[in-house]
Amino acid sequence: MKRKIYLEDTPLKEAQKKLLTAVEFAARMERIPTVDALGRVTAEPIFAVVSMPNFHASAMDGISVKASQTYSAHEKNPLRLKKGVDFRIVDTGDPIPDEHDAVIMIENVHMIDEDTYEIIEPASPWQHIRQIGEDVVAGELIVPASHVLRPVDLGALLAGGVLEVPVVSKPQVAIIPTGTELVPPRRRIERGEIPEFNGTVFAGYVQTWGGEPVYRGIVEDNYEKIKSAVQSAVETCDIVLLNAGSSAGSEDFTVHVIGELGEVLTHGVATRPGKPVVVGIVDGKPVIGLPGYPVSAYLALEWFARPLIHHYLGISEIERDKVKVTLGRRVVSVMGAEDFVRMTIGAVGGKLIANPLTRNAGVTMSMVRADGLLRIPATSLGYEQGEEVDIELYRPLQQIEKTMVLSGSHDMTLDLLATAVHKADPNRFLSSAHVGSMGGILAIRKGEAHAAGVHLLDENTGEYNVSFARQYLADTPFVLVNLVYRQQGWIVPQGNPRHIQTVEDLQQENITYINRQRGAGTRLLFDYLLKQAGIDPQQIYGYNREDFSHLSVAAAVAGGTADCGLGILSAAKAFGLDFVPVAEERYDLLMTKQFYESEGGQVLRSVMASDSFKQQVESLGGYSCRDTGRLIFAS
Amino acid sequence: MKRKIYLEDTPLKEAQKKLLTAVEFAARMERIPTVDALGRVTAEPIFAVVSMPNFHASAMDGISVKASQTYSAHEKNPLRLKKGVDFRIVDTGDPIPDEHDAVIMIENVHMIDEDTYEIIEPASPWQHIRQIGEDVVAGELIVPASHVLRPVDLGALLAGGVLEVPVVSKPQVAIIPTGTELVPPRRRIERGEIPEFNGTVFAGYVQTWGGEPVYRGIVEDNYEKIKSAVQSAVETCDIVLLNAGSSAGSEDFTVHVIGELGEVLTHGVATRPGKPVVVGIVDGKPVIGLPGYPVSAYLALEWFARPLIHHYLGISEIERDKVKVTLGRRVVSVMGAEDFVRMTIGAVGGKLIANPLTRNAGVTMSMVRADGLLRIPATSLGYEQGEEVDIELYRPLQQIEKTMVLSGSHDMTLDLLATAVHKADPNRFLSSAHVGSMGGILAIRKGEAHAAGVHLLDENTGEYNVSFARQYLADTPFVLVNLVYRQQGWIVPQGNPRHIQTVEDLQQENITYINRQRGAGTRLLFDYLLKQAGIDPQQIYGYNREDFSHLSVAAAVAGGTADCGLGILSAAKAFGLDFVPVAEERYDLLMTKQFYESEGGQVLRSVMASDSFKQQVESLGGYSCRDTGRLIFAS
Repeated sequence: MKRKIYLEDTPLKEAQKKLLTAVEFAARMERIPTVDALGRVTAEPIFAVVSMPNFHASAMDGISVKASQTYSAHEKNPLRLKKGVDFRIVDTGDPIPDEHDAVIMIENVHMIDEDTYEIIEPASPWQHIRQIGEDVVAGELIVPASHVLRPVDLGALLAGGVLEVPVVSKPQVAIIPTGTELVPPRRRIERGEIPEFNGTVFAGYVQTWGGEPVYRGIVEDNYEKIKSAVQSAVETCDIVLLNAGSSAGSEDFTVHVIGELGEVLTHGVATRPGKPVVVGIVDGKPVIGLPGYPVSAYLALEWFARPLIHHYLGISEIERDKVKVTLGRRVVSVMGAEDFVRMTIGAVGGKLIANPLTRNAGVTMSMVRADGLLRIPATSLGYEQGEEVDIELYRPLQQIEKTMVLSGSHDMTLDLLATAVHKADPNRFLSSAHVGSMGGILAIRKGEAHAAGVHLLDENTGEYNVSFARQYLADTPFVLVNLVYRQQGWIVPQGNPRHIQTVEDLQQENITYINRQRGAGTRLLFDYLLKQAGIDPQQIYGYNREDFSHLSVAAAVAGGTADCGLGILSAAKAFGLDFVPVAEERYDLLMTKQFYESEGGQVLRSVMASDSFKQQVESLGGYSCRDTGRLIFAS
Repeated sequence: MKRKIYLEDTPLKEAQKKLLTAVEFAARMERIPTVDALGRVTAEPIFAVVSMPNFHASAMDGISVKASQTYSAHEKNPLRLKKGVDFRIVDTGDPIPDEHDAVIMIENVHMIDEDTYEIIEPASPWQHIRQIGEDVVAGELIVPASHVLRPVDLGALLAGGVLEVPVVSKPQVAIIPTGTELVPPRRRIERGEIPEFNGTVFAGYVQTWGGEPVYRGIVEDNYEKIKSAVQSAVETCDIVLLNAGSSAGSEDFTVHVIGELGEVLTHGVATRPGKPVVVGIVDGKPVIGLPGYPVSAYLALEWFARPLIHHYLGISEIERDKVKVTLGRRVVSVMGAEDFVRMTIGAVGGKLIANPLTRNAGVTMSMVRADGLLRIPATSLGYEQGEEVDIELYRPLQQIEKTMVLSGSHDMTLDLLATAVHKADPNRFLSSAHVGSMGGILAIRKGEAHAAGVHLLDENTGEYNVSFARQYLADTPFVLVNLVYRQQGWIVPQGNPRHIQTVEDLQQENITYINRQRGAGTRLLFDYLLKQAGIDPQQIYGYNREDFSHLSVAAAVAGGTADCGLGILSAAKAFGLDFVPVAEERYDLLMTKQFYESEGGQVLRSVMASDSFKQQVESLGGYSCRDTGRLIFAS
């Protein structure tokens, strides 16, 4: 068992090319019923076996005739025809009798009696007849090899008498999660356990790309066990994915296992994230060691497993659509590694503005929230705010363009609002980014958001929001519409063991407080409370530890790293914590006047004004909707 | 049973709106395991139940410490720590002991002995620690309602402890094919029978759009039977599709059945094709009567069933991508009806050129071959050649841009060539349109094709192709590369009952010939044979009846409407007909020099030059590959 401590910095393209060159798939083929072949890939060109129609058929409701016997018919010289002798009645699709070669539409026939019809115009040969093979002709190529079968292809195949199609078998893709800490997902996770969910994500992508995922179960961090899992996987599968253990640590066995059983092609690519990936070949089968962090794993999966599956199926890879956006924030990058940055995109005021999400590779939610991916070449130091860049889209542009972008402070009722808006108009979406009240005001000023949730208390006046918005939006007509009044209070462990009631109680010995970030409305409220009580912030242990949302504060209290934080009731409830009310505050939506008066703004207003929305909000607890939807202020 | 003979001309948009307004779905909901929920639509917003991680975890391999105990560490004053007392060893993902609050990377630790480690830098609190909820925090919104679940969403749901998700049930879509002539698809179709394949196409689209197709079996053209089929379908299904019988003929029962059981909203829309559609409501369920012709049926399905399914699921409709193209031919339209024209698109010389396919609604293959759809408003008379128009794409633009467009005469070996090219490079495609040799030369001249198959015999010189290409491509450098030599001969019924050997034999009484269109190489060959034999074309019965391909000629002979036609061996074979060789001709590919020398041209040449391609061609019979791939002429 050889040790290899350092990761390489192989350029991604080079690693991909090495892998595809080394792999030689002998793709299996199978014959399946045509009716079951939707989405499958043809293994050969497919030709029609029979013609459709396979007889001359009437294309109209009418009568069939021999054209040459109708040439004397004229308006001034009507021609009488006898049923069974000169004509037969045919409906659309009926076979044409052998002795006939034309059809006259029923509208152009005058019925004299049951057996005698009159025409005043001759028929031309083959008029209104669907000739043999008009739809599909025997011998004709219906679809080429390596074609992904669509519904209409199945129709043409069946019409052409092809009842079974040769298709490329789906490549079997083994998924082997490794890690002693892994457990199947469940509701109650013990300390030290991690639910195994990457495997489900891999399976979903493999399926989407046309492969057959084969989940092989969790294997603990044990060299021999991982080795035997890989050995048995390569026997029956075409591609093997190992998850975690792909780096260079003491328990990272993947590279050693592949090295012993076969050949390591690449260990480490020059990307951020996704660097610690292992690419190798065992018994001619590709084995990919994917990093443990979700974002790294999903990116590396797409870089290596997707082309392998396409290569096996013999189909071309379609790249994601790209779109040009303006950067709302600077995005820095280091030289030497390709950077992949998850981005949100907002279509505000006719412009597409993109902002980076967290670059922490451990945050699955950043992939869920991303609208697209910014790829920064290894030779670049990044981009400045305001620069135009290309972004690969994760969501259709049409959807992004119909999305209202909410910024500012987070509140649980925004999730209800998003749901209600989409329900009112299924073509509209509402997304929200949580950057605090001040961040929200700045987003409106920079044209990056349609609306912002704000609850900023002016220490001098005791008034909410107006003075702040005026200060920063002097040049932009804006409005403030009330969303809710809400209770802020102390979030404390169950039973409130430290008996915290007032801000003075936080000065007790050994009490650790968890604060909110600068610019958050809740932070301002806390500062206001301290000032009123005449307490120096530095007397509060933990004043400088900042978290970014009500839920994170509650999580810190629940996790035991803090004894108290200021936040909203619903956050306390989410973690089963206790809540001591401190103040009621006004939470408004700040919008430009332009958006307020737009179609989207009207949808938002009417949803907020609806009784059903207000009922939902109040049933959460800790909220009052007495002014919800009311215009509080217009500049 | 009321009779209604005339179809309305309701504008499509109006008919769609009427339907969506009249329908009120009470969408069902179900809870399914998250691991099975790929592609399903959430019925509610979904929130995390647990945090991920739900304990503070190490983000690195290293040692956990209490940060405040490390502050004295310095390069000049190394600090020694005792295992179990001052530090513990942690790997990435391990829980942090309660008494610790920081991790030092193993690279920054110096091991003195088994139990004593040394550091030369203090740790800051919370460094290299994944805090509780970093990935997903309990209570956080993971996905909103009406969200189509992607692989990464499933990961976030499982990470957040959501093991089951409430999803909207797939709407049950009943498919009822009607028609006494319909039979299940089979290889041997009797005269008057039509294989039922539209149902499979509908099922495929319904599935693609998120519905659950329920195939209810063929019902004969009988009012009572159709009525009871509809009645039982509306009992258990959410949407009902009836196929054929939607027009105003004597056997078109759909409108009467819907009228008796419920309400007809629209009968006839102002479109071409697709006009004879019936849209109605029975017991609150939408019932759509789709036209019988495949193209009309598939278009109408998309107009009415797709929005219904999306409406049921509560998701937004994504429109197809559009692209601007230049029209290679004039496309005419009548006022008063919206026209839907299937188009091919070729990316030739940096331009996208689109040409209409047949507008016959009976030709399924035209949907298979279409790259996109041109929509001509009811108020337009169409577009001129050279005009720029928008086209909805049926295939990804990336694929269209990688497609070599072959025009000209049809030959079976082109299908083999297409397969071989795609095999040599899965990112390349080859499509061929059959417009005859002259049509092919003109397509090259107009910049609509990369290459054209030609076999034009110069009556004066006995030479093939060169003089024609020179005449029409005086200003364009071109090359001729041989594809094959091939046998042309008389295609006659089995046993050659009329004993046709020479062109003189066609003058016998009662022999019906089937000719090829003007501009076809085979037509020129026939004219040459007639001229050599000194026969006046008008002495050949059927000389003026033109068909457009070898296969169509063979189909006419097989169908008994002609006794003989001139064509290639493989076409005769496809229909089990006899073949009397007449002449060997040279079939070349004509290309601009520019394409010949391009990357795509090189792929084409190397495929043609390969032994495997030649072997495949010669095994068809009737071909010689003695010059295949050879440059015959360069201008």
